[in-house]
Amino acid sequence: MELDRLTTPALIVDRAIVTRNIERMGARMAAHGVALRPHLKTAKSAQVAALAVAGQAGGITVSTLAEAAYFLGHGFCDITYAVGIVAGKLPAAADLMARGADLKILTDNMDAARAIAAFEGPARFKVLIEIDCGDARTGLLPDSPQLIAVARIIDGAHNAALCGVLTHGGHSYLATDIEGIKQAAREERTAVIGAAQRLRGAGLPCPIVSAGSTPTAIHGESYEGLSEMRPGVFVFFDLDQLAREVCRREDLALSVLASVIGHNRHVGQIVLDAGALALSKDISANARWPQTGYGALCDLHSMQPLYGLHVAKVSQEHGIVPVNDDALYDRLPIGAKVRILPNHACITAAGHDRYHVVEGAKIVDEWDRVNGW
Amino acid sequence: MELDRLTTPALIVDRAIVTRNIERMGARMAAHGVALRPHLKTAKSAQVAALAVAGQAGGITVSTLAEAAYFLGHGFCDITYAVGIVAGKLPAAADLMARGADLKILTDNMDAARAIAAFEGPARFKVLIEIDCGDARTGLLPDSPQLIAVARIIDGAHNAALCGVLTHGGHSYLATDIEGIKQAAREERTAVIGAAQRLRGAGLPCPIVSAGSTPTAIHGESYEGLSEMRPGVFVFFDLDQLAREVCRREDLALSVLASVIGHNRHVGQIVLDAGALALSKDISANARWPQTGYGALCDLHSMQPLYGLHVAKVSQEHGIVPVNDDALYDRLPIGAKVRILPNHACITAAGHDRYHVVEGAKIVDEWDRVNGW
Repeated sequence: MELDRLTTPALIVDRAIVTRNIERMGARMAAHGVALRPHLKTAKSAQVAALAVAGQAGGITVSTLAEAAYFLGHGFCDITYAVGIVAGKLPAAADLMARGADLKILTDNMDAARAIAAFEGPARFKVLIEIDCGDARTGLLPDSPQLIAVARIIDGAHNAALCGVLTHGGHSYLATDIEGIKQAAREERTAVIGAAQRLRGAGLPCPIVSAGSTPTAIHGESYEGLSEMRPGVFVFFDLDQLAREVCRREDLALSVLASVIGHNRHVGQIVLDAGALALSKDISANARWPQTGYGALCDLHSMQPLYGLHVAKVSQEHGIVPVNDDALYDRLPIGAKVRILPNHACITAAGHDRYHVVEGAKIVDEWDRVNGW
Repeated sequence: MELDRLTTPALIVDRAIVTRNIERMGARMAAHGVALRPHLKTAKSAQVAALAVAGQAGGITVSTLAEAAYFLGHGFCDITYAVGIVAGKLPAAADLMARGADLKILTDNMDAARAIAAFEGPARFKVLIEIDCGDARTGLLPDSPQLIAVARIIDGAHNAALCGVLTHGGHSYLATDIEGIKQAAREERTAVIGAAQRLRGAGLPCPIVSAGSTPTAIHGESYEGLSEMRPGVFVFFDLDQLAREVCRREDLALSVLASVIGHNRHVGQIVLDAGALALSKDISANARWPQTGYGALCDLHSMQPLYGLHVAKVSQEHGIVPVNDDALYDRLPIGAKVRILPNHACITAAGHDRYHVVEGAKIVDEWDRVNGW
């Protein structure tokens, strides 16, 4: 089927670009001698996962237990759940392990560690300790006294194995240039290696030393001492990554197909049928590119920028595109289809339940997604 | 089951509040002698629809054809699809009618009107013309020369019936106070009645004169001359509606249940497992209440504000709650559950596939939702 026959709005992914993005990241990580454990919170799709683990050890990262269950159901067993666990989620984690998952769970505190140690049942949990490398979201500082205390609870538990440390260089998103990203990558690596060394120095096991964000995976200069990197959005990239110089324009694999449903000439705007739900309310790229709005319009086939147009406002099912040249109404008549590059692939994709996979203007496949929790 | 046993994050709706909100809106519309055609883009749930049409004529409003198909499947036949149609969606609309839907479609332009008239097949489309009453999103101005031209295309088509005019007083969201909302309601009513009078003056039929937004349905002073109102978010309300003085705090029916998954004492924050996907990136209430962030924390059971805490930052699965009193870490230990009032119910609910329905702290039901397109 041709792309322009699809009902709109619809989520479109370009298979050749996804494949190229994954191959490039895989080659880059291989050149640095570090394993790639792709974070599938972006794609949430078994078909993307299959591409992303090709040639790798096969491990994946997820952000929800729903993702873990979905990927397990598709044959992916080596799964790191990279969001801090709480007692209430241990039964579900144990159930996944009983069904064959080689699941790694994460904690940064003694309460959760004690809950793991006290959990009743046959499960033997594999546990990573989360380290804050400067992201200031979650995790223990590498020099925190609690690091050893949490590790000893896990290591001493009859039902748990301490498997290592994990950090996320999310502060790379605060960097204002590539040098800032390189600095965040250094901090990410130094922090998590420092934590690993403290554990090992205390006689504790630490086989896994896990780091990762897409910016630090792209611009980092050394991954020595790390056992794996966990970038996520690199499979698709997006305008925010482009604005940060983390990818090139031709690497943008994800777009939203939309129809022109209105010409509101009396206020100077074209109206699309892609609004807050199809695009999301994420406007992250605007911090660097204020004219991005909720997404940049592209030509349906060439994916080239479309007269510099962008979605400036959204309501639930409407996207408003300001127009200052009357000729554009003729170029984009009612019913015309456009593609919209989103700010943030992870958040935009989450509004959709499937990907329409294209090669050029041909739809060649449909990939599913797991949403929810 | 008790609420605190649910896996988090989860979408919670309080049945007693929804029922009361609907009854109050129904009584208000009845007192004004205008039919309520609830806009189900907010709830997207057959169970909410059943409550919302009780005692009404039974008509509903939807924002997508996926909603139309879902509600038709649940026995709701009288459906207005209140987003402008394009040629590519006519086959799906015709299919819905063939399956029994009394579907009304919408247009504001001659291209779509001509596409309707030219559509081949047995379908007989019921068409409303969209009027811009000041919202400046979509629709023809009531005095537009095109109004009569579009109407004549529809009225002259062998396969279409002109059913009236429809407007959305969305500019009520630009009002800075209740008087401003009243003014928007006057403009909404005046514009759509004016358009109806022009059609009737030209000898064209106009049985339906449809208006509506929640603010104008709550604060409007007259609905005379309108045949129906189409508010949507009133079923749940949210912090944005509260900040606009469109509801009371006790009318907020929707919340997101979340667990405390981290205490990041070195930066002064509690971390929740509800982030950008569970809450959405909608921050609309912040225009009036800058301390709302991505949502306000409430006590699990009482729904009273929780120490004035709010979610200040989100990443995909993390919500960051700034804390400036160390005692709060003890009051909200790891694993504790809280409820978060969202900014915008329509957008937050769209991240979830079901509602966990509570009465007090007891889960009494589960309601489904239709997402996507």
